Amino acid sequence: MLLGDFICQRLIQLGTTHAFGLPGDYNMQLLDHIEDNKDIEWVGCANELNASYAADGYARATGRPAALVTTFGVGELSALNGIAGSYAEQLPVIHIVGMPQSQQQASHLWMHHTLGSHLFDAYVKMSEHVSCDTAILGWTKRDLQNAAPTIDRVLTSMVTMRHPVYLGIPVDLFDMDVPTDELERPIEPVREAHDPEALDYVVKVAVRHMEASKRPLVIVDGCVMRFGAVNVVYDFLKRTGLPVVVAPMGKSFFPEDDEQFLGVYVGTKSKPGVREVANSADHVLLLGSFMSDMNTGGFSYSTPTCHTMNVHHDSTDIGYSHYTQLGFFEVLPALADALESQRDARLEHARAMAKIAHQPPAPADSFPTILTHNYIWQRLGEFLRPGDHLVAEMGSSCFGAVDTALPKDVHYHQQMLYGSIGWSVGAMLGVAVGARALSQGRVILFVGDGSLLLTMQEISTAIKLGLTPIIFVINNDGYEIERVIHGPARSYNNIAPIDHSLLLDVMGSTRARRSVMNPHETGQVAKDRDESHAHEAVPSRKRYRAVYTRDEFDALLDDREFADSNEIQLVELFCLRGDAPELLARTVHPTPDK
Amino acid sequence: MLLGDFICQRLIQLGTTHAFGLPGDYNMQLLDHIEDNKDIEWVGCANELNASYAADGYARATGRPAALVTTFGVGELSALNGIAGSYAEQLPVIHIVGMPQSQQQASHLWMHHTLGSHLFDAYVKMSEHVSCDTAILGWTKRDLQNAAPTIDRVLTSMVTMRHPVYLGIPVDLFDMDVPTDELERPIEPVREAHDPEALDYVVKVAVRHMEASKRPLVIVDGCVMRFGAVNVVYDFLKRTGLPVVVAPMGKSFFPEDDEQFLGVYVGTKSKPGVREVANSADHVLLLGSFMSDMNTGGFSYSTPTCHTMNVHHDSTDIGYSHYTQLGFFEVLPALADALESQRDARLEHARAMAKIAHQPPAPADSFPTILTHNYIWQRLGEFLRPGDHLVAEMGSSCFGAVDTALPKDVHYHQQMLYGSIGWSVGAMLGVAVGARALSQGRVILFVGDGSLLLTMQEISTAIKLGLTPIIFVINNDGYEIERVIHGPARSYNNIAPIDHSLLLDVMGSTRARRSVMNPHETGQVAKDRDESHAHEAVPSRKRYRAVYTRDEFDALLDDREFADSNEIQLVELFCLRGDAPELLARTVHPTPDK
Repeated sequence: MLLGDFICQRLIQLGTTHAFGLPGDYNMQLLDHIEDNKDIEWVGCANELNASYAADGYARATGRPAALVTTFGVGELSALNGIAGSYAEQLPVIHIVGMPQSQQQASHLWMHHTLGSHLFDAYVKMSEHVSCDTAILGWTKRDLQNAAPTIDRVLTSMVTMRHPVYLGIPVDLFDMDVPTDELERPIEPVREAHDPEALDYVVKVAVRHMEASKRPLVIVDGCVMRFGAVNVVYDFLKRTGLPVVVAPMGKSFFPEDDEQFLGVYVGTKSKPGVREVANSADHVLLLGSFMSDMNTGGFSYSTPTCHTMNVHHDSTDIGYSHYTQLGFFEVLPALADALESQRDARLEHARAMAKIAHQPPAPADSFPTILTHNYIWQRLGEFLRPGDHLVAEMGSSCFGAVDTALPKDVHYHQQMLYGSIGWSVGAMLGVAVGARALSQGRVILFVGDGSLLLTMQEISTAIKLGLTPIIFVINNDGYEIERVIHGPARSYNNIAPIDHSLLLDVMGSTRARRSVMNPHETGQVAKDRDESHAHEAVPSRKRYRAVYTRDEFDALLDDREFADSNEIQLVELFCLRGDAPELLARTVHPTPDK
Repeated sequence: MLLGDFICQRLIQLGTTHAFGLPGDYNMQLLDHIEDNKDIEWVGCANELNASYAADGYARATGRPAALVTTFGVGELSALNGIAGSYAEQLPVIHIVGMPQSQQQASHLWMHHTLGSHLFDAYVKMSEHVSCDTAILGWTKRDLQNAAPTIDRVLTSMVTMRHPVYLGIPVDLFDMDVPTDELERPIEPVREAHDPEALDYVVKVAVRHMEASKRPLVIVDGCVMRFGAVNVVYDFLKRTGLPVVVAPMGKSFFPEDDEQFLGVYVGTKSKPGVREVANSADHVLLLGSFMSDMNTGGFSYSTPTCHTMNVHHDSTDIGYSHYTQLGFFEVLPALADALESQRDARLEHARAMAKIAHQPPAPADSFPTILTHNYIWQRLGEFLRPGDHLVAEMGSSCFGAVDTALPKDVHYHQQMLYGSIGWSVGAMLGVAVGARALSQGRVILFVGDGSLLLTMQEISTAIKLGLTPIIFVINNDGYEIERVIHGPARSYNNIAPIDHSLLLDVMGSTRARRSVMNPHETGQVAKDRDESHAHEAVPSRKRYRAVYTRDEFDALLDDREFADSNEIQLVELFCLRGDAPELLARTVHPTPDK
C-alpha cells in the first residue's frame, strides 16, 4: 500500500472526515492522496496558524481527531501556536509535516525552508514541547518496513493522551509502497488494566466521604468532554441526583434547564447565588478539572482538600490520597451503584440549592438604549437552538458567554486556558466543517474587532466551502480586554480602523476575472478557466448588519430570515469602550468575597 | 533605572527607532515605557507572525537591529516562523517576551497561556532553535543585580552573530529598579583579534591564486549586506576592477549599470550570457555566500573547489584550506592593496565579459497584449528610482524580480533561502517604517494573490501609520508557484476568490462610528472618542487599479500621479495561470546545461 493511502485510511478509521492545511512543495504528494480519496476531504486554509485553529475547532466539535498538513519549517512553525493551544486544552490533532526528500536530507543540503543549515530535525525538536509523541520517518529499507507501525504508535499516543502528535515525512515517501499488515487492527486508546480490589477500595472511601456529606456539590469541567466521558458522567449525575455546577471550560456539558443544574462556578468570581451555594458545600466532587487561573476564578475554590474528591480520566484523588489507573470510566459507575439509593434526598437538596443559585439577573443598565455586554449575553440565550455551536473568542466574548443560558444540546466552544486571541475565527471554520459533517445546527461566532483582525482571512475559506456561520463582531474600537487589564487610554490598545461592512465582499468575490477569458489562451488555460468559474459560484448576496442599540439587537435576533439564513452573515455590534462582561470585570478587579 | 527604560535606552543606542508587536497582559508594562519614550516608537501590528516579518523587514531595510515584543506563549509562538526566517537569513532581531509575574512562576501556578502546566520554560526552549542566545530574567535579588548585564550579553550576541535573540521577562520586572552602571559602554560586536602573521599568509596565498587566474569572477552574495560589509566589499571591487556577478540574495548590492557588473548568477539556471561567462571563469571569488538550493540554482556552481576562494564575515576558504578569524574586514583591504596595480587589465577583462553577459532580453512573447511575467519584470526596471525599496514575495515575484534591472541605490528585499510565503506583506511594513525613519524613497511590494491571503491584514497597519507603499498583487488565481512545481490542475492549489478592489477600504475605514458619540457616554468614553476620531484621519481616497494588458501596465507606470502618490495604492495585475518567470521555470524544470 502507498504510504499516502495508508495515512488516509488510518485517519478515516479514526472518524476524521477532513484534513486542514496549506499546500507546499514538500507536502503536495500527500495532498494528491487526500484529494483522490472520496472519504476524506481537503480544506485548504488561508494560512497555517488559522489551519491549526481550524483543526482544534474540528476536534472540539466532533470529538474526533483532527488532521493538519503543513510544509517543512515555514508552514509548520506558523501552526505551532495553534498546536500549543490544542496541547494545553487536550485536543487530539495529528500534525503531518512534509519534509525535503530523503536524498536531500541524507546529503545534508541547505534546502529552502531550512535554517541555513543541514539540521533537518530542528523543527521537530520545537514541536516536541507541544506534542505527546513525535516521529520523523526515515528512508532506509528498514525504516520503510517500520513506517506503518511508527505511524500507528504516534496515533495511539494521540488517542490515549488526547494531545497533538507530530509526524515528519520526507516528500518522496508518500508514494512509496510500505507493508501495512496491521491495518485491520484499529487504533485505540491504551488503557492499563486496573486492579479490581483497588477499585473496590477507592469506591468504599469515596462512598464514605459522600455519605458523610450533607451538602455535596459536583463541579464538572472540560476534561469530561475531552476524554469522551460525557455519557458516563451524565449517567452518574442523573443516577445520584447530585447538584451540579460547571466550570467555564465545562460549560454546555450539562443541560442548563435541568433541575440539578445550579450555574457556572468560577470560584469567588461566580455570580452571588452560585458563590453562596458553593461556599455552603461541605464536600466537592470535581470531574475532569482544568485548574487554570481563569477557569477557577484565580484559584479561588474554597473547599479544603480533605473535603474534595477529584476524578480525572485516569486517576482519582480523594482528600490527600492519589489513586492511579482509576478514572471516570472505572470509578463513576461503581460509585453511582453505591449512591443511587440516596437519589431522592440528593435531588431534594439540589432543588433547594437551585433556588438559591438562580438569583434574578442583574438589574438593567442605567442607559437602557445602549447595547451593552450585560444585555448581549443575557439576550443571546433566547436566540440559540438545540444543535447550535456557539464559539466565543478568548476576549470579552468568552467571559460574557459564561453568563448566557444555553438551551439543551447547544455546543459551546472557547479557549479559556490557553487563551490565544484570534483563535475563534479559525476554530469557527473547523467547528463549521465538523458540524456539517455531523449534520448539526448553526455555527455562531462571537469575536471582538481586535481578535478578528489577527485571523480574519479565514472567513474566505468558510465562504469557499459554502458554510453559513453567523459572525458577531463586537466592535469596541480595539483590544478592550487589554484595556480592562491595563492601559485603558494607551494607544497601544487601539487597532487600525477596519471597515467590517465590506469584509464578506472581500473574502468571497463574485467579480468576473477578465484575464482568464483572454482569446489567446492555450488549452491548459481554458481548462483552468472552467475551474475558476466554478469558484465563482459562491453566494452572491452577502449579509452585513450594524447594530447600535438594544432594540436593533432584539429586532435582528427575532428576524426569522436572519436566524434561518443559508448564507454567511456578519453582524457588527457597536459597544462602548470601557464596557465589559461582568465576569471579566470581576476577574480583573476582584471585590472581596463575602 | 527602571528595567523597561534600560531596555529602551539600549535599543535606542543600537539605532533602533521602532518596536513591533502586539499588546498582551504580560507585556503592557514594557509598552508603557516604549510609548512614553520619545526616541522609540511602538508599531502595533495586526498579528504576531506579521509583526515578526515586519521586524525582519525593518532589519533588512535599515541594517539595524529590529525589536519585537510579544506576550508569553500565545504571542511568541505565532512569531516563531518569522523569527526562524530572520535566523536563516542572518538578521538581528531582539524578541522580547513578557512573561507571568515572578511570584506566579515561583508558585508554579497554571496561568493562562501556559500549556496547562507549570513549565514556564517550554517556550524559550522552542525559541532556542531559532536564536543565537536566549535569557529569561529571574527575580531574586541577585538576578536583578544581573538583569542589565544579562540583557547586554544577549544584545552583544545578536550584533556579533547577526541572528535573532530571545529575552523572556516577568511582567512585574519592567518597573523594577536595576543597576545599569554599564549603560555608557556601547553594545558592539565581539571580534576576536587576528594574528597579523596569519593575515599576511592568507593574503599571500590569495594573491597567488588571483595572479594565476586569467579569467577571475567575483560572486557577491547576501552576507555582505547582512554583516555590514557593503563599503569594504564595494571598495575592494572598485580598486581591483574585477568582474562582478551577484547571487539572487546579493542582488541590489552592486550598481547594475556599473561597467564591472555582469548580471545575476544562479548557477546553471542563469541567463545564457551570464552562464557563459561563469562557465569560462578559471577562478571564482565568493563573498558572503548563502549556499542554499534556490540561491545557487540547485547547487549548480561549476568552478572546482581548488579554484574557488570564499570570504565570509569571520573566515576565509581558499581551495580546501580554511582560515578562521579572517573575514571581509581583514582580508579584502589587504588583498586590494596587493591587486590594485592590475586594475586596468582586470577592468578590460570585466568589460569584455560584460559584452558576453549582457545578451538582449528574450524575444517578446507570442501574444503581445497579454500581461506576462516576462514583461512585468523587464518593464519594472524603468519605473524604479534611486532610493526605492523593492520587496518581492517568495513566490513568482522573487524569481521574476531577479531579472529586473535595478537602477543605482534601489534596495531589493526577498527571502529566497527561508522562503515563507506571506513574508513580504509584513516585511513591507517593516521596510516602509525603516525607509521613512531613514528618509528614503518609495516602497514597492510585489506579492501573489495566494501569498497575500496569508498576511493581508498587515496592510491595515501601514494605513494606520500613514505609510504609502505601492502594492502590486499578481493575481494568477491561486498558488501559481506550487502549480509550476506540482499539481497544476489540482484544486488544493486554488485559493478562495478574494476581491482585492475593496481591500484598502476594509483595511483603512473612514466610516464614522456612531456608537462612540452616544450622548450617555461617561467622561472616559468622551476622551476615547477624541482618540478614535484621530484614528479616522486616514486618507479618505484609497487607490485601486486593475491591470490586464501590457498597454495598461505601461500607462500606469508612466502616470506621474501614480508614481508620486502620497497615498497607499494597490494594483492588481491579472496574469494567466501557467505563466511564470523564466528563472522559476528553469529552476523547476531544468534544461541540460550546454
